[in-house]
Amino acid sequence: MTPDPISRVLAGDPRAVARAISLVEDDAEAGRELIGAIYGHTGRAYIVGVTGAPGVGKSTLVDRLIAEARRAGRTVGVLAIDPTSPFSGGALLGDRVRMTTHSNDTDVFVRSMATRGHLGGVAAATSDAVLVLDAAGKDLVIIETVGVGQDEVDIVRTADVSIVVLVPGAGDDVQALKAGIMEIADIFVVNKADRDGADQVVQSVTANLSLQTFAEGEWRPPVLKTEAANGVGVDRLWEDIGRFRQHQAPHYQRRQQVRHEARLRGLLAQRLVEYVEGRLAAGAFERMVDDVANRRIDPYSAAARLVTQVLSI
Amino acid sequence: MTPDPISRVLAGDPRAVARAISLVEDDAEAGRELIGAIYGHTGRAYIVGVTGAPGVGKSTLVDRLIAEARRAGRTVGVLAIDPTSPFSGGALLGDRVRMTTHSNDTDVFVRSMATRGHLGGVAAATSDAVLVLDAAGKDLVIIETVGVGQDEVDIVRTADVSIVVLVPGAGDDVQALKAGIMEIADIFVVNKADRDGADQVVQSVTANLSLQTFAEGEWRPPVLKTEAANGVGVDRLWEDIGRFRQHQAPHYQRRQQVRHEARLRGLLAQRLVEYVEGRLAAGAFERMVDDVANRRIDPYSAAARLVTQVLSI
Repeated sequence: MTPDPISRVLAGDPRAVARAISLVEDDAEAGRELIGAIYGHTGRAYIVGVTGAPGVGKSTLVDRLIAEARRAGRTVGVLAIDPTSPFSGGALLGDRVRMTTHSNDTDVFVRSMATRGHLGGVAAATSDAVLVLDAAGKDLVIIETVGVGQDEVDIVRTADVSIVVLVPGAGDDVQALKAGIMEIADIFVVNKADRDGADQVVQSVTANLSLQTFAEGEWRPPVLKTEAANGVGVDRLWEDIGRFRQHQAPHYQRRQQVRHEARLRGLLAQRLVEYVEGRLAAGAFERMVDDVANRRIDPYSAAARLVTQVLSI
Repeated sequence: MTPDPISRVLAGDPRAVARAISLVEDDAEAGRELIGAIYGHTGRAYIVGVTGAPGVGKSTLVDRLIAEARRAGRTVGVLAIDPTSPFSGGALLGDRVRMTTHSNDTDVFVRSMATRGHLGGVAAATSDAVLVLDAAGKDLVIIETVGVGQDEVDIVRTADVSIVVLVPGAGDDVQALKAGIMEIADIFVVNKADRDGADQVVQSVTANLSLQTFAEGEWRPPVLKTEAANGVGVDRLWEDIGRFRQHQAPHYQRRQQVRHEARLRGLLAQRLVEYVEGRLAAGAFERMVDDVANRRIDPYSAAARLVTQVLSI
C-alpha cells in the first residue's frame, strides 16, 4: 500500500477502511505491511464482544447498541463474524439490513467477516480488522460472533468487554455455546424478554453465577433483560458497558499485556513453520509422511525428527 | 504406561481403552508415549464423521447406526465431541442415554470428549482417541460433532466418510454450519423427515449440489431422508456408507496420505514453538510483548524478530 491509502485509513475514509480490511482478510503479506504502517495509531478503541447462538437477535441488539453509542457521540465500527456456509446465507442478509439502517451515518462502519478459506485463521484476520478500525478512529469496535468454535473463543478473548446473549425458550441444547464463553461473560443479556420463560433464564444464569465466588470489589456479571426489537432495555445495557469499563480501568493495562502475549505466541508459531518448511531438504517432509502412513514411525516421533533435521539440535 | 495396560488396550479391554483416551486428553507427554506404543497396530478402522447443528438428532441417529453396524457384525467405537459449556449439560445426558442402550454390548465403546481446557486442542486429542479405538480393534469409529468451529472442520476432515445431518423447519440461520462442512459432506441426511418441510430441505440441498460439477464416475453425495427416532431410513444410510467406502477404495491410500501430511504439519508447529520458547534469552519474550503493547513495534515484526533471535538466520 502506498502512503496515500494509509492516510485515508487514518482519516477514517470508509472506502479505504473497507479495502484495508479486505487486505488483511485476503493477503497475508500485504496485510502484515499494512498493520506495520498503522500500528502506531492504534490502542484507543474500546472493543465490545457480543456472542450468542444463531437466532437470539444479536444483529438487532447490536443495531440498538450502535444507536446508543451514536447518541453518546461515539463513532462505531462493527465486525460481524459470519460462520455461515455458502449453502445458507443468513448473516449476509442481517448485514445488509444493518448497513441500510446506518448507511447515512459516516461515523458507523459495518462489515461481515467471512470465515471461509482463511490463511491465518479468522481470529487473526479479525484481530487485524479491529486494528484497522481502531486506527481509523472508531471509538467503539463491536465484534459479533455466534460463539461456538475455538476461533470464536479466541476472538471473544480479544474484547475489552464480553456480552453473552441468551433467549427464553431455546433448549439448553440450542443455546449450547463453546465451553469457556459463558465463563468469560462480563454481562449477560436475556433478549426477547417479552417471551415466556425469560425470568427462568435469568434465574438459571443467576443461580450459576451464585456458584462462583467473587472477591471483594470484583465485578459480578449483571443479568439484563432486553427486547432489542422493541428498543427495550438496551439503554441499561449501554450503561452497564460504561460501568464495566470504569470498573476495569485499573486492570486495563494488565489485560492488554496478556492479550498481546497470546497474539505474539500465535504469530511466532506461524513464522516458525514457514521457516522450517522452507529449510527441509527436498522430499524430506514427504518421505516422513510416507513413513507415518506406513506405520514405520508414529506422528509425534516424526515431528520431533523433522525439527532435529532442520535445527540440528 | 507399562506394557500391561498397552496389551489390554490392544485386546480391547474397555476400562484400559477409557483410561488411554483420558491419557491422550489430559497429558501431552504420556499421550505421545502411548501413541508411539500402539501406532503400529492402527490403520484398520473405518472412520465415520457425523455432523449437524444441535437438536438435529445426531445422538439418536448414531445410536441407530451402531445397531446397524452390530447387525453386520462390526465392532464400534463412538467419540462424541462435546462443545457444551458447563453451564448447560445436554451432550453428557445424550451420552448417558447411549451408554445405557448399548451398555451390555462389550463390542461398543462410547465416549464423550470434552473440549474445554485442552492443551493440544480438541482436534489433536480426537485424532489420538481414534488411534486408541483403532488399535483396540474397533472396525468402525464414529465421530459425532456439531460442526461449528474450525476445530470441528479439522476433525471432520480426518473421517473416511462425512455425513451432514439437517432437519426440516430449522431456519437457515439455525442450521448454519461452519463454512467448509457442507462442502465436504459425502452423504446428506435430512432427519426428522416426518416433519413438515422435509422435502423442501431435500430439494434445497439437491439444488445446491446441482450447481457443482461432478466428473464422470465421481461420487455425487446422496440426500437421504431418515426418522432416526422411529428407526426409519437408517438401513439405507448404512448401505450408502458401504457404497461410498467401496467407491472410494481406489483413492483411499491417497486420502490417507493427505491426512497424515496435515497432521504432521500441525505437530511440527507445536514442537517448534516449544523449542523456541525454551531457547529465548530470559525475559526476551516479555520485553517484546511490552514493546508491542507500547506500540514500539507491530506484532508481525515482533514475531519475525524473535525467530531471528533464536535461529540466528
